[in-house]
Amino acid sequence: MKQIKNARPTHPEKSEVSPAVVNRLPRYFRYLRELIRQGRSRISSGELSEMMNVTASQIRQDLNCFGGFGQQGYGYNVNFLYAKISEILGVGEGYAAIVVGIGNLGSALVRNPMFENRGVDVVGLFDSDPAKVGAAIGELSVRDMKDLESFLGQTRVDIAVLTVPKDAADAVADRLAAAGVPGIWNFTGCELDHRLPDTVIESVHLGDSLMRLCFGLRESGKEET
Amino acid sequence: MKQIKNARPTHPEKSEVSPAVVNRLPRYFRYLRELIRQGRSRISSGELSEMMNVTASQIRQDLNCFGGFGQQGYGYNVNFLYAKISEILGVGEGYAAIVVGIGNLGSALVRNPMFENRGVDVVGLFDSDPAKVGAAIGELSVRDMKDLESFLGQTRVDIAVLTVPKDAADAVADRLAAAGVPGIWNFTGCELDHRLPDTVIESVHLGDSLMRLCFGLRESGKEET
Repeated sequence: MKQIKNARPTHPEKSEVSPAVVNRLPRYFRYLRELIRQGRSRISSGELSEMMNVTASQIRQDLNCFGGFGQQGYGYNVNFLYAKISEILGVGEGYAAIVVGIGNLGSALVRNPMFENRGVDVVGLFDSDPAKVGAAIGELSVRDMKDLESFLGQTRVDIAVLTVPKDAADAVADRLAAAGVPGIWNFTGCELDHRLPDTVIESVHLGDSLMRLCFGLRESGKEET
Repeated sequence: MKQIKNARPTHPEKSEVSPAVVNRLPRYFRYLRELIRQGRSRISSGELSEMMNVTASQIRQDLNCFGGFGQQGYGYNVNFLYAKISEILGVGEGYAAIVVGIGNLGSALVRNPMFENRGVDVVGLFDSDPAKVGAAIGELSVRDMKDLESFLGQTRVDIAVLTVPKDAADAVADRLAAAGVPGIWNFTGCELDHRLPDTVIESVHLGDSLMRLCFGLRESGKEET
């Protein structure tokens, strides 16, 4: 993942929230959404602390750094906090995404409600396999990779979800960057950060995650012997 | 993700590699596998450094801490290093996994070669939807969730890949832990760590990752205005 740049206080529009706090915000976002679902309108830092298993002082520190909405004795306004965190994270900015590589993982992601939940609109699907081109997933049909550049010339796309096979990753990422797509959500297992320094890249390395789990098991097993 | 426990030097079987190094090992594993694919048998720390965009001294420090295989002027033995890292990470321990929740994401994961690549054997698939029970994915057919405990009573399972809907996550995780499954690879978006302190949990929060990407885009966009 590209490191989130530090806030620069001289730029008035720049976020003044530290990268460390920003990394914790998606978690607050999830818990606040859960509270909204439950119909809660206020929560104390103590209760949020117990729910999230973080100290109440950490929560106060995190949330106060973008406005201090907590009121002694009243707690936090859940909806206001949720809206503010959404704003900071760019949820609801109406980002448009395409999914490139409609294999098993790509088509599973297209169907995942997470895009809609985060205000990201999936506007195009691409694959190079003629057998897949034209197939419908929801309201979209799969386009031919040959038409990628012409599509990108006509449609604003902020995010490419990259789920092509490893061997194709570099070449497709180059095409996306050359066509001006500013962000790549990278599931290929390749590291693209070094290759595309001007693109915002967020990688999900599933294999690495599985290995961390195996290592955790190995370590926990050793304790029992 | 459950924090990886610190090495305890008093326990001879315990890994003596620090958690920070362990977190970097899956990345070495990926690059070394790529080198093996290319038929390379040796690599210098300088070349590995350029390839991985990490300083050569960091590489020497990381790799020397489990044996110092690098030879001045000869570099590292790629196969030996790969085998050693695999051993540390628990690849090839023959872990057995089940996938619980055969929706779009669950079935995409079952078909992903990553399990085989990491030496994890998928031995069972479970879903509560009668329409899915009995369906075949590769050589396995989907079992009924009702039969989870009886299956786990007969078959050693190290890892449950949890891809059930959010609303079902807590209850299913409780069943897995009660039946003695030691590790959960959690894709539900729920946090299970606090709930199941004795289970090794590795979570992939896709929604959080998407939000980090949106935040990165928002920050990079601001710079241009």
